[in-house]
Amino acid sequence: MTYCLAIRVDEGLVFVSDSRTNAGADRISTYSKMFTFAREGDRAFVILASGNLATTQSVITRIKSDIKQGSRPNLMTVEGIDEAAEYIGKISSSQQQKHVNAVAGSGVDTSASFILGGQVADRPHRIYLIYPEGNFIKATAENPYQQIGEIKYGKPILDRIITRETSLEEAALAGLVSMDSTMRSNATVGPPVDVLIYEMGSHNLSRHFTLQADDPYLLEIKTAWDEKLKEAFKELRRMNWNEPPPVAEDD
Amino acid sequence: MTYCLAIRVDEGLVFVSDSRTNAGADRISTYSKMFTFAREGDRAFVILASGNLATTQSVITRIKSDIKQGSRPNLMTVEGIDEAAEYIGKISSSQQQKHVNAVAGSGVDTSASFILGGQVADRPHRIYLIYPEGNFIKATAENPYQQIGEIKYGKPILDRIITRETSLEEAALAGLVSMDSTMRSNATVGPPVDVLIYEMGSHNLSRHFTLQADDPYLLEIKTAWDEKLKEAFKELRRMNWNEPPPVAEDD
Repeated sequence: MTYCLAIRVDEGLVFVSDSRTNAGADRISTYSKMFTFAREGDRAFVILASGNLATTQSVITRIKSDIKQGSRPNLMTVEGIDEAAEYIGKISSSQQQKHVNAVAGSGVDTSASFILGGQVADRPHRIYLIYPEGNFIKATAENPYQQIGEIKYGKPILDRIITRETSLEEAALAGLVSMDSTMRSNATVGPPVDVLIYEMGSHNLSRHFTLQADDPYLLEIKTAWDEKLKEAFKELRRMNWNEPPPVAEDD
Repeated sequence: MTYCLAIRVDEGLVFVSDSRTNAGADRISTYSKMFTFAREGDRAFVILASGNLATTQSVITRIKSDIKQGSRPNLMTVEGIDEAAEYIGKISSSQQQKHVNAVAGSGVDTSASFILGGQVADRPHRIYLIYPEGNFIKATAENPYQQIGEIKYGKPILDRIITRETSLEEAALAGLVSMDSTMRSNATVGPPVDVLIYEMGSHNLSRHFTLQADDPYLLEIKTAWDEKLKEAFKELRRMNWNEPPPVAEDD
């Protein structure tokens, strides 16, 4: 399993992804699911990948080779991030189709999903969710984040914290808490955790951190969040369950 | 969708269930998913139901008619709760089979899952999860609760709070918070919320509360939990994401 998320706030973008892959209980490995492409001063893209590892690797390989060989379109020639999303969607569906034929009858799921985030020149910074079918949707002011993989455990904290006005630092912390909740509840989502913070207009992807399982900050957040949730629970008012609950006044 | 959970602690059992059913976006209704069967001083059973409404209703109808007609086995004659689980599992799989034949080719999912909890005489109080196939598992000291339906959003709080030693009141509150998180994230899980608290050895199911959407305590917990989670998040230490994270000492 996988958990990747991208958050879009006014100040920029935040990406968080886990690194565990498993093809059966005894085939667990570590692969980063975050891929970056940038040309200083002009464009920056981050791709997060979920799904069949053979498919996602072949998509990333193809994206790289298109840039290297100058095939058009490629991520360095697209005029906007929507064109980039369309380009990746097409590669993804054609690679999936190739793999579907290769594994026909084996029951292997070759599908893959991607999140694409970034900025071209001074156009708005955006994030897109690219479905296995190759079509895509973008995050909006009302839906300022996108997730792929094991999305449920980590969703509540994002819904409570993230708005367009959230700062990049707050968004990164919310992303980390969201990842922590997911890793706690699903053993097939695991570290290292990639965190990338993109400041709007910078075209710079250097704030990319890889937090190992024993990273002191990751451990601190895990412990502190657990303690604080337990404290918060303690502070809730107890009801006397021996009495029927009071009836609402307008009943 | 549905969310039902049952918690087993040393002091007794707690059951929480929502009441929303939907067969398509424009066929939303309210049905309680909690059913109780008791004989004072001897036995008490609570059944929570999830899945196809036609199937679950026919299973409950059959359980009631078996008691009424004195067919054996029935819930008033079984010698233990494990025998009750087996009995319900058999009814469930035969009713599903009947409905599968009836809806053949329509794409309707006729499957259903149940949680059974209760106590017979002075035997241990227990909860069982009954799968659509009719087989079942019981909650243990290590896994002191069972869930059916939309289980992910409400799981983290249970994992953090519930142990065998948790009091019945604390367990009921944790169940309510778990239900609140689920209703917040999935619009097809909704009130009224049934809460039933069973004290071990009592064979009494009278502490059964039905909390409507405008129930003051339900609203209070919803608001207080949201505020407390936001406060807890505020109190987490911020990292300076401009610096690379500190490397663990034993690296």
